[in-house]
This record gives sequence, C-alpha cells and structure tokens, in this order.
Amino acid sequence: MQNKIRINGSRLWQRLMAIGEIGRIAGTTGCDRQALTDGDKASRDLFITWAEEIDCEIAIDNIGNLSATLVGSEPELPPVITGSHLDTQPTGGMFDGIYGCLAGLEVLTTIAQNNIKHNHSLKVTVWTNEEGCRFKTAMMGSAVWSGMMTPEEAYALCDDNGTSVLDELKRLEYLGAPVKATAKAAFELHIEQGPVLEQQDKTIGVVTSVQHMSRHKVTISGVEAHAGPTPMSMRKDPIKALAKILPALYEFGNDSGVDGRVTIGQIETYPGSNNTVPGELMFTIDLRHPIEENYKQLVSQSYKAIKSICEELNLPVEVGCFWHSHGIEFDKNCVNSVEKAVAHLGYSNMEIFSGAGHDACNVASVVPTSMIFIPCKDGISHNVNEMATESDVTAGANVLLHAMLDQANTFASNE
Amino acid sequence: MQNKIRINGSRLWQRLMAIGEIGRIAGTTGCDRQALTDGDKASRDLFITWAEEIDCEIAIDNIGNLSATLVGSEPELPPVITGSHLDTQPTGGMFDGIYGCLAGLEVLTTIAQNNIKHNHSLKVTVWTNEEGCRFKTAMMGSAVWSGMMTPEEAYALCDDNGTSVLDELKRLEYLGAPVKATAKAAFELHIEQGPVLEQQDKTIGVVTSVQHMSRHKVTISGVEAHAGPTPMSMRKDPIKALAKILPALYEFGNDSGVDGRVTIGQIETYPGSNNTVPGELMFTIDLRHPIEENYKQLVSQSYKAIKSICEELNLPVEVGCFWHSHGIEFDKNCVNSVEKAVAHLGYSNMEIFSGAGHDACNVASVVPTSMIFIPCKDGISHNVNEMATESDVTAGANVLLHAMLDQANTFASNE
Repeated sequence: MQNKIRINGSRLWQRLMAIGEIGRIAGTTGCDRQALTDGDKASRDLFITWAEEIDCEIAIDNIGNLSATLVGSEPELPPVITGSHLDTQPTGGMFDGIYGCLAGLEVLTTIAQNNIKHNHSLKVTVWTNEEGCRFKTAMMGSAVWSGMMTPEEAYALCDDNGTSVLDELKRLEYLGAPVKATAKAAFELHIEQGPVLEQQDKTIGVVTSVQHMSRHKVTISGVEAHAGPTPMSMRKDPIKALAKILPALYEFGNDSGVDGRVTIGQIETYPGSNNTVPGELMFTIDLRHPIEENYKQLVSQSYKAIKSICEELNLPVEVGCFWHSHGIEFDKNCVNSVEKAVAHLGYSNMEIFSGAGHDACNVASVVPTSMIFIPCKDGISHNVNEMATESDVTAGANVLLHAMLDQANTFASNE
Repeated sequence: MQNKIRINGSRLWQRLMAIGEIGRIAGTTGCDRQALTDGDKASRDLFITWAEEIDCEIAIDNIGNLSATLVGSEPELPPVITGSHLDTQPTGGMFDGIYGCLAGLEVLTTIAQNNIKHNHSLKVTVWTNEEGCRFKTAMMGSAVWSGMMTPEEAYALCDDNGTSVLDELKRLEYLGAPVKATAKAAFELHIEQGPVLEQQDKTIGVVTSVQHMSRHKVTISGVEAHAGPTPMSMRKDPIKALAKILPALYEFGNDSGVDGRVTIGQIETYPGSNNTVPGELMFTIDLRHPIEENYKQLVSQSYKAIKSICEELNLPVEVGCFWHSHGIEFDKNCVNSVEKAVAHLGYSNMEIFSGAGHDACNVASVVPTSMIFIPCKDGISHNVNEMATESDVTAGANVLLHAMLDQANTFASNE
C-alpha cells in the first residue's frame, strides 16, 4: 500500500496560496515577510493550525525554530526530519522556503491520513530567519540548532532599527527551550532558484552538493568635496575606486568559469548628496563556486584587487567577510533514498548542485542530509515573480514522501 | 574717510561662530541645517536680531527670501545688493553661504556705525534653499526672485517625507509677499569651495564667470535573482552596466581637461539585499565645465555611453537631467568694482571661475552681478571640515564693503 500512496497536490497548492496571502506585495504574487515580523508570525501560526489537525506535537526551540512531529511507533528512535523556512526576502516569492515547509507538512498529513505505520518519528521544522536580509545573518535558526552559532550570538543580531532577534522572539512569543540536534536522516525540498532544471526539462533535481559561498562588505573612505570647484585630480573619490573594482570583480567571475557567481547586491554612498563627492562608499559582494579551489581563488583575487586599487588611489579601505558557508557534499545514503523515490515515481531527473545556501547546509553538519529540487519559472527567485507549477510542486512532495518513508524504515512492514 | 574704513573682522568671525552653533554636528565644526528646518529658521531669526540693531528694514518675500536693507538717501534708486544663504548640506560647514550673508550684514553694520552716506539703499539677502539637498532643487529662492521659477513650482517641491516647501514656509512663518527683482548691482562673497586660491597663495579671487553645470539621474532596470543559482550569463544585472559606465564617465571627465568635473554622489540599489541581484539601480551624475563646447560634449558623451552600454546588455535605462545651470559671464562693471576694491586694499588676488552654482547665477540673469572668493582650507567644502581663516574672512568682507560703496555712488561725496 505504501508504494502507491501520493500526497494531495491540490491541498498543498491551496496552502501555498494561503500562506502567500500573508505579507502579499500588492499587485504581485510576491511576499514581504521578513524574519520575525508580524507576517512571519502569522504564517507560523497558520502552519501550527494545520499541523494540529493531524495531532502533531508542536515544539518551539530556543531560537524560535518551530517543529511539528508525527510521533512514530518507537519514539526513542531518532526522527526522520525535513523542513525549510517561512520568512522571505523584502521582495520575495511564494515558494522559496515555504514550499519545503508545506510539502513536509503535506507528507506528514498524507502519512497520518493513510495510517501508514512508521517506527521513526517524522518531523517538519520551520527554521527561523533563513533569508538573513533583516538581521544580516542568513540560515540563523538552523545554525543555532546545529551548534554552529550560539543562541547568544543570534539573540544579539539587530535589524536596521536596532531591534534584536531576542526582542522579536519574545514579542512574537516564539522563544522556547533548547533541543538536542538529532535525526536519522534529513531532507530539504526546495525550488531550484536557478534555470538549469527548466532548461534541461527535468522535473526533479537530485541535489548532491552545495557551492562554497560567502558575503563580504567593502567600505572605502573618501573626502567629501563640492562637486564643482574641486579638480578631479585633487579628489579623494571612492567612486573612482568602484569604477576600477567592479570590472575586475566581473572579470574574475568570468575567469572562474560558468559555475562562478559574483553578485553586488547593495551599494550605498554617504552622505548621498548629488552634488557632493561621497565621503564613504559601502558595497557588498557575494561570491560562490562549487569547486573549493576556484572559490578560494575568486575570494583572494577580489580582496587583492580591492586593496591594490584603493592603495593606488590612496583611499583607505576596509574589506571583510560577514558570512560564509562551506561547500557541502550531501550524505550518499540520503541521496540514494531520493534517487530510489524518483525512480519509483518515474519522474525525469538529473543530479545538480545547489548554488544557494539552505538550512540543509547547517543541518548536514550534524545529521545525514540531502536535498530535492524542482524547477521554478525562468530560474527566478528572490523576486515577486518567483513561480512554480502545481504539477512540479506535487512531484517534488511525492519524492520527499517516499524518501522520508524509505528512511523511516517502514517500507517492508507496510508493503 | 570712506577710503579708510574697514569692517570689524572680529565681530564678523564671532557671528560666524554663533550661527555655526545652530545645527552643529556633534564633535565637529560642521552643521546640518538643511533648508526650511527648525535650524534654518533659528539662524534666520538670529540674523534678523543683528540686522535690527542697525535699524535695517526687514522683509520676507513670497519664497521666504529674507532681506535687511539700510535705506539710502535716495530710496527711489535701485539698491546695491549682496547676499547668500544660511542653509547647509546634511554634513555641511560653517562658511558655505553663511559667510556671504554675515559679511553682507557686517558691511551694512560698518557703514551704519561709521555714518557713511549712500544714496542707493544697501541690501543683504538670505536666499531660501540654496543647497537643494532637502528639496532636490538648488538655488530655489534666488530662482523665484529672478523669475526663473514660479513660486508655485517651488511651493510644490517636497522632501523625502512628502513635506512641501509651502508647508514649511507657513510652519516657520517665513512666507511673505512677492517683491520686484531690481538692483543697481549685486555681489556675492563666498568661500572658493576649491583649492585653487590656497594653492596659488592668493587672498582674493575676482570671479569672472561660472561653469556650465547640470545634474542627471540614471535608472537602470534589471531582474532580481538569487545570488547563487542564476548563472552570470543569464542575469539581467544592472551593476554589470555600472561596471562599464563608471570608467567611461571618468574617462570623459579626464578627456575634457583639468576644468572638467564628473561627480557620482548617489548610488542606490533596489531592493538592496546582499544576496539578490538588484532589480533596479539608480545613480546621479553631476557634470561641469567652464567652456560651453566642452560641457556639451561631456553631457552628450555620457548620455551616449550610458544608452549604448545598457542597450548592449539589454537592460532598460532611463536617463534625464533634473537640474541645469547655464554658465555665466559676470557683469564687467561689477567685476571692475571688485578689482578696484582689491587694488585699493592691496590684497593678493587672481581672476577665477566658479566651479559651483551660487544664487549669484540666478541674480545675474536679472541685474548686473559678480562674485568675490576667499580661500578655504584644502579646498574642502560641503563637509564638516570646511574652514577659512579669520584673516581671509576679514579681507573678503573689506573687498565687499568697498565694491558695494563703489556701486552705491557715494565714494566722491564721502571722500
């Protein structure tokens, strides 16, 4: 019987649309539901409502990670877990993160309603603050869970208004007790956030690894001066440095091959007056590559160029890494469960690496983990136009269902 | 007797320091006293207090321009005027604009206290919103006075919070009745805001002309995408365009010779998330050159390059001029009065052009006008470190005194 069960794609789709109404950006299908805002809380509260319908045990940990557990017949065994996040970018979509949470809940709902026995408990977790846009540190909840960050470090993170993570956890009543990070196996289902599956016309990406990636902040000091009288040769103009740094960064990215990624997402000038040479320039660089050697070269080339250009122009510069995620090789046994599920279900598929960081990267440092991707339209994500089809959404959740059941060790007994 | 009179440099310096306390940026000698803020009003109120001590007639016009007049023996004659502004940049100094106002008041005070007869009235005006940083349009008060802008256009200008010029004029009680723009001659005394006089070791700059100048806003549309998964070749990344545009702009500036000016004061990315390719990039360009042909080439080269780079990258772009000030040749008769005053006083001097726009540019479109410069430290202006010496401040005001007296037609009778 277990072989034949499938998730309810229509219910999953309707729930995705329902959560997508929270923080909806008017006139779009996008959402602004940044971490630990009222919108984030509302989406979590709705998630709990649905989890309680199938009698899940609800738990909140000391960094606000929210879990719903379908207790197995041998509760002392480590659970098989899945999860993702409900928070979004400021102009995010309805699928990034949300899909992984709701598909996990759909898997538990399907198993509960079909009375499928499972000796391992099955758990879906909503990780806190995956996006990192509000509190500037991504994948925070899973980092605390996996011991890569202390709760105190996370609590102290503040948004631009000086409101801390701890303030918001208390205000939203999402501050619980520490939990032990344990699982037999972990899976995360996600939209690809890139164009490869769509281009290759594949329904499922069997994710085997994650790129090396890091984010860097560059601050160049100049001297404010009036735009008219000061001759160009006498200026200390940080934008002159930017004019040399940007082409160099894109060249390094290009030299590193098709898998290299260079993103300048934020540029700010101070004081930002149109007739004043800026006294300060700040910009961020996000660097990624799946091959460690190429990644390290990309970082070192960038740092070297920035420092030498600023030195040449006699402009003081500070450059530092504020976030780093080591590349991951996912657990072969978990990948194998995904491969078996895809083969069983007959979906077209390919092996793929993840270009983005996910909570699964942190989880993988503690327990055997792998990921599943489905295509998204035009590869667009972190954008209000992010979209996936109901058919692919359903397929991905079915793969998650069978991969989790494979790990929950119940296949033989229920067959 | 008139030949021998000199302004009181110590009083002038003390008044500069007193106004500098209003809106003082803590720990600096700089000020934040943007147009039509409480600080701007406080500085005007203090100005009025001093002007009333010498029985000046005080008037406020329909755009808040504040005038103090020492009525001449023939009040029907057009006045000899001077003036500048008391508003500052967000991180401005104590001299830019303020010096011209207080030196004008010092000239009137000296003339009043020495009982120097003058048939033409002598007037000093505090022009409203010269800096243009809060309401995005510089030299506003003098533009309305000279008929280059209607009061209605000026009233409707709003700051970033949506507060209009008219709202603030009413709130601060600085809204008066229209006046006729008339004067026999006009002078504006100002710090150079550039390094030339200091480098050439001259006390006085006899300003003969003002650069052509304009400000432009460029908005490039991209497509937001996640920093990791989207291959570089598939991105619509507006920063890629910036990487090509910035070097081109600096090259055009360089090619236009030592008098060309290219300033990129503001750069903003939207949504400004460090792991998202920006969906939009906005930046401003300020372009200046004293020679009209070179100026026009600088503008046309810049527009052409921006459009062709964005077309090549297939990125939609909007580029437009939001402020323009035509170059000025100052009135030869006024320049001659300044030259005579400098020669009489024996200060070292040179002819110079202004790289910055000043209220005098607008005034010059209606009445005979010229300017006087003194050095400022390291040429720094629009900066909290803007500084001038008491000796140069005194010298400049003495030149203004004698240039105004020369035009007030009293030299012979008082000699």
